[in-house]
Amino acid sequence: MSSSYVLIKIHDSDNVAIILNQGGAPKGAELPGGITLIEDVPQGHKVALVDIETGGQVRRYNEVVGYAKHEIKQGSWVSEKVVDMPTPPKLDELQLATREKPNFEPLEGYTFDGYKNPDGSAGTKNLLGISTSVQCVAGITDYVVKLIKKTLLPKYPNVDGVVALNHTYGCGVAITAPAAIVPIRTLQNMAKNPNFGGEIMVVGLGCEKLSPSRLLEIDEEQAVNLLPNSEAAKTLEDHVVSLQDENHHGFQDMVDHIMEMAEAHLERLNKRRREPCPISELVVGMQCGGSDAFSGVTANPAVGYASDLIVRAGGSVMFSEVSEVRDGIHLLTPRADTVEVGQALLREMQWFDDYLSQGKADRSANTTPGNKKGGLNNIVEKSLGSITKSGNSPIVDVLSPGERIRKRGLNFAATPASDFICGTLQFASGMNIQVFTTGRGTPYGLEVAPVIKVSTNSTLGKRWHDLIDMDAGRIASKEITLEEAGWELFHLILDVASGRKQVAADRLGLHNDLVLFNPAPVT
Amino acid sequence: MSSSYVLIKIHDSDNVAIILNQGGAPKGAELPGGITLIEDVPQGHKVALVDIETGGQVRRYNEVVGYAKHEIKQGSWVSEKVVDMPTPPKLDELQLATREKPNFEPLEGYTFDGYKNPDGSAGTKNLLGISTSVQCVAGITDYVVKLIKKTLLPKYPNVDGVVALNHTYGCGVAITAPAAIVPIRTLQNMAKNPNFGGEIMVVGLGCEKLSPSRLLEIDEEQAVNLLPNSEAAKTLEDHVVSLQDENHHGFQDMVDHIMEMAEAHLERLNKRRREPCPISELVVGMQCGGSDAFSGVTANPAVGYASDLIVRAGGSVMFSEVSEVRDGIHLLTPRADTVEVGQALLREMQWFDDYLSQGKADRSANTTPGNKKGGLNNIVEKSLGSITKSGNSPIVDVLSPGERIRKRGLNFAATPASDFICGTLQFASGMNIQVFTTGRGTPYGLEVAPVIKVSTNSTLGKRWHDLIDMDAGRIASKEITLEEAGWELFHLILDVASGRKQVAADRLGLHNDLVLFNPAPVT
Ligand SMILES: [Ca+2]
Ligand SMILES: [Ca+2]
Ligand SMILES: [Ca+2]
Ligand SMILES: [Ca+2]
Ligand SMILES: [Ca+2]
Repeated sequence: MSSSYVLIKIHDSDNVAIILNQGGAPKGAELPGGITLIEDVPQGHKVALVDIETGGQVRRYNEVVGYAKHEIKQGSWVSEKVVDMPTPPKLDELQLATREKPNFEPLEGYTFDGYKNPDGSAGTKNLLGISTSVQCVAGITDYVVKLIKKTLLPKYPNVDGVVALNHTYGCGVAITAPAAIVPIRTLQNMAKNPNFGGEIMVVGLGCEKLSPSRLLEIDEEQAVNLLPNSEAAKTLEDHVVSLQDENHHGFQDMVDHIMEMAEAHLERLNKRRREPCPISELVVGMQCGGSDAFSGVTANPAVGYASDLIVRAGGSVMFSEVSEVRDGIHLLTPRADTVEVGQALLREMQWFDDYLSQGKADRSANTTPGNKKGGLNNIVEKSLGSITKSGNSPIVDVLSPGERIRKRGLNFAATPASDFICGTLQFASGMNIQVFTTGRGTPYGLEVAPVIKVSTNSTLGKRWHDLIDMDAGRIASKEITLEEAGWELFHLILDVASGRKQVAADRLGLHNDLVLFNPAPVT
Repeated sequence: MSSSYVLIKIHDSDNVAIILNQGGAPKGAELPGGITLIEDVPQGHKVALVDIETGGQVRRYNEVVGYAKHEIKQGSWVSEKVVDMPTPPKLDELQLATREKPNFEPLEGYTFDGYKNPDGSAGTKNLLGISTSVQCVAGITDYVVKLIKKTLLPKYPNVDGVVALNHTYGCGVAITAPAAIVPIRTLQNMAKNPNFGGEIMVVGLGCEKLSPSRLLEIDEEQAVNLLPNSEAAKTLEDHVVSLQDENHHGFQDMVDHIMEMAEAHLERLNKRRREPCPISELVVGMQCGGSDAFSGVTANPAVGYASDLIVRAGGSVMFSEVSEVRDGIHLLTPRADTVEVGQALLREMQWFDDYLSQGKADRSANTTPGNKKGGLNNIVEKSLGSITKSGNSPIVDVLSPGERIRKRGLNFAATPASDFICGTLQFASGMNIQVFTTGRGTPYGLEVAPVIKVSTNSTLGKRWHDLIDMDAGRIASKEITLEEAGWELFHLILDVASGRKQVAADRLGLHNDLVLFNPAPVT
């Protein structure tokens, strides 16, 4: 007699498996393998496949995800209450760049239709970006963006949108503190994202600590434009409006000045057209948020598969979220392309360990109530699922928070796991399209780059039918294989990057503000 | 022959004075008192009235604002280049509550027209507040707020507006770190601000760390509404929408649910009318931003005068900005109402000293390029000007960041000086109207409470004619006395609080987002 319950066991050596069925399974349920549940187990949560003695390893992904607090009988619910968390891998005992390189065949013949920039990069959107050198101006930029959308954008149909890069930095902050490098670099590099085509504008105040010329890395003396992509605008005056400018007699002058500059930029942006671009100009950011126990079984491995395809096709992939790779770092350091890359991984782990401990927190601060309700006992189990997003490619480089991408291939972009901070930092690093996996569900979206939302389970995929772009829950229900899901996502990435398909967030206009990572004090 | 140049000397014992004239004064100019300038001095900058020897005190406000790096001749420009900054007062050597209480006559007969709340508090606006328990929902709340403004607000003319309290907290943060108390308390107390009339709504996700019930401090088990002001809504379901609610089949269901709840709240809010309220329900926040050398001579002392009037009339005033009172703390601790209040002042100074040094910064991080260009040499000089906003009343209580006000009178609400963080924390503490002084100019505005912007100099007051609400520069040009300016501001506060006058920020719709102070790590 075959059981109506489905268990998902990831590796032969695992001694737990998760229940696939919606609603979970009740006490007394007969599971595959002749296991009888001795208590109710919710969907996505773990069942002990054998007796586990007190202190014994709880194994998933062929890794230890915890130790039994007391004896766990076969058929029990392995909840967070009965499991102690393992200690994180010691950073000085790890193997660096020791794994044999996988023999990936290059994938030929793929392109996407992007907006080519003079520096060789390519945008997936054609956006007018209005950056700000200080938070004080946000009321004005919000006002002007509304006005541009209403009165100017209709005249420039080839421009996909206008975005104010508002933030909470620029003044009232300890700008000489060592960690201030992070938000400053982030703002500088966001302005260079290929989706702005080198046509970034900056609205500043005039008395702020972060000057517009510093933000644009323009030498004020020489008045030479260092923006690599801008074809026509050559001077600081073509890019920067300071509200305190003595020529501004009141509010309307400020608005007129910004509108005039915006129109000049829009005219140039409007001449651009999509054209076939090599995959080498695609920089795909991978992220998860609101994870559950399916994340590591369905969506994240599918993302990992697609990630390998992107890399094989010559493109770049970023994975991130330091606090979610920290407990699986021993699986990543061997995959470093060189010892130096391995050391850079360790450096970022150590930096974040120190950052958290300075605030009297630790990595266990990552896991959310939703993660636990979704069956993830702790950060170790969450990590093992999270890092499957990185596929199997070698890690060619490690970016500190907000650094620009330097090498094609799989990059680790060190960021917090916080969805919006991670998205912002990946965008600063050059990401021009993002894939976001979610189990519990979040209406995440960015205006600056398309975000493909992938559900880890079909319950969410069906309920949020118009908010989710792809349902990876079909892997668990065997509708598609993991490989098929990976290929589907690969093609979806190319379609979205090319403007052939629109993601849910863009269709509905649901966009979250960018959020800077500022590990330095405010004043 | 009388000089055409005007010098402002604050105290008889000062050995520097600032130049009032627009454009400053050139080398060779004959100043009042028989002083001849030996170099050009910009407007608002300091002139040496006597020779100051190397290491000698530079005195302003009858305090030491610096020491001469080398000999400074009479008639020189006392720029930041020639002045060393004094060390800050030692916190264990200060006099607490030693000053004799000023003999202030109570001011009788004043009221303002506010929206009375059941708990006795009163709003200066009648707003529907939509708080959020986590940043993930911001895309949806922004969408819904636009929709409410368009389709619902016109039906409820007595409601002044609808505001989404978006923020970057709630998840992806170390919520158990000790300093997490600050952002959590801030969100909890913002919901209780009198301007929301107890009708706050919360949009949550469902898997976040900061649950909506924790934000509202509602006991989920008892489902009893602890919001002190809400007359009708009694259960959590009347206040909270969770996007992950299983009844939401897609985006439109979420929107419909929020709109339905909003309408119920708007119906109740719409029944409210302004009525005379005692000044005891007025909580005026004082802040400065973009300060110059006139700040401490014109706007801030006028604010201090008005502050004393508010206190004498039975109201409450908050002054803030720890890093701007730190160097003048020896002037404040004697004014503490009790030794305990004095100790609380020291506690907040120490907390901020530690916070800055943990980030390898110090108080000198406060001063901006604009401050220096405006004639403020350093944080000591800026502080002495900044604290004049507090007038002369005794300090009756000290609030840690985001704590609710407990006592009527002059409160020190400890906040960073960062304008938006200070505004947000004062709002959480119960501020229902704010006064903001600026010398360089910033288009600061809040949607949640009216902000009266006061310029410190008439050059700005005239140039930003439609952005500034009151020009205190008229004090320097002797058009009005400081006392007259204080009374003018006092009446303006009452007029704005009563809805009789509209501030520039509200007229133009220029509003900055609230910004939480999160001294704890993100994850
Ligand atoms: Ca994640
Ligand atoms: Ca994330
Ligand atoms: Ca916003
Ligand atoms: Ca200030
Ligand atoms: Ca301020």
